[in-house]
Amino acid sequence: MVKWFSRKPGRIEVPRLRSRADASATEKVALAEFAPDILAFLGRAAYVQLMIFENLSRVISTAPTTAAKTAIGKAAELSMAKHRKLVDEITKAGGSPAEVMDTFTNEVDQFDRIARGADWYESLISAYLSAGFFDDFYARLAAGLPTESHTRLVAIFRAESGEKVLAEFLQAAIDENPRLDSRLAMWGRRLMGDMMLLARSALVFPDHTRNTEAQVEPVFTELVASHTRRMDALGLTA
Amino acid sequence: MVKWFSRKPGRIEVPRLRSRADASATEKVALAEFAPDILAFLGRAAYVQLMIFENLSRVISTAPTTAAKTAIGKAAELSMAKHRKLVDEITKAGGSPAEVMDTFTNEVDQFDRIARGADWYESLISAYLSAGFFDDFYARLAAGLPTESHTRLVAIFRAESGEKVLAEFLQAAIDENPRLDSRLAMWGRRLMGDMMLLARSALVFPDHTRNTEAQVEPVFTELVASHTRRMDALGLTA
Repeated sequence: MVKWFSRKPGRIEVPRLRSRADASATEKVALAEFAPDILAFLGRAAYVQLMIFENLSRVISTAPTTAAKTAIGKAAELSMAKHRKLVDEITKAGGSPAEVMDTFTNEVDQFDRIARGADWYESLISAYLSAGFFDDFYARLAAGLPTESHTRLVAIFRAESGEKVLAEFLQAAIDENPRLDSRLAMWGRRLMGDMMLLARSALVFPDHTRNTEAQVEPVFTELVASHTRRMDALGLTA
Repeated sequence: MVKWFSRKPGRIEVPRLRSRADASATEKVALAEFAPDILAFLGRAAYVQLMIFENLSRVISTAPTTAAKTAIGKAAELSMAKHRKLVDEITKAGGSPAEVMDTFTNEVDQFDRIARGADWYESLISAYLSAGFFDDFYARLAAGLPTESHTRLVAIFRAESGEKVLAEFLQAAIDENPRLDSRLAMWGRRLMGDMMLLARSALVFPDHTRNTEAQVEPVFTELVASHTRRMDALGLTA
């Protein structure tokens, strides 16, 4: 077993999402205005969560060590549980889960093909960054939904996703192989663009004026800031 | 979506493992005598469980419908939880999980390469049959272990594994495509042989006399009978 997989866990401070109380009322309103209807929101979020599980399960299958498989398994288990909770919410909201999700499969699968990356490390950092990014985005979007389910939904998105263990394996890999640093930094920047596009496509803009753009901009600025903190936690330049 | 994926669930009676009370004392003793030490037992069982998860996650990634992905996701989540519980038991027994499991990776990975099969249906029936078979075998083996952990271990192996949902998708596929019937029956018979070999290799025989063979035979007869019930549940000839 190579040295960096036997490091003790617990060194890394992964920036957690801010608690609901921290989210400014302005932000909530800004997104609420452009939120899709509840079924479209849930279908997209549930399918994105399934994609995150599939990405994690590929990371497990191709992991270089048994220790990595077991540790990352925790994140896979949590992501599947999250997917299934969102599917239950689709049913509660009166939708047929597969039908509601199928509207978004092409778009999300296309993102997934990019996010897989070229090797284990790129897949791993994609899993780490995208789980954090989409939890963050959907929690903000859910907070502004006018449905009775919004408190439950925010709790689902803000629940533990196992990103700490992913960050630990990434950090260990970067420490061991300094050339990985710049490659993963570049990969993270590229992924950021694709995540932003997928996030924006969830919003319903009545018209594309500079005014509406200006309204959602603060939210996207916050998403970028959180992404930067996740990159910083690994010592990578965002 | 093809018709057979929208069938209502709940038609299939999957034979459950017998409760502990049913297992005859003779069987327990028969296996206990040939049981490996606790760490070897746990390492092998934990890694087999990881393989079952990886097989299920491949089944999810290649599933023909989103409904199948979500439904089979439940089984994947349960199998990862089971793997992680077994890993915890390795730690409790004083072992280093990855080290203990790594002794068995070659042998189990070799089985896995066979069990994947040639397409989605073969992977799916492998997941269904092997989860049932190995839960059954390890529960019997654990029942005879002389350690304080044996009650906990039997409970882990006898817990829900999601095989009902796997059986439902298989049954629907067979109903829809009658030619699948004979192919999957043949596949199940082949897999049975490989599962028996992997199971037997867990036992420690002091010598290979006809006497020791005769002692474990009743247990393997029972394993075959349970396998036959799982095949019967799908209308397949074992």
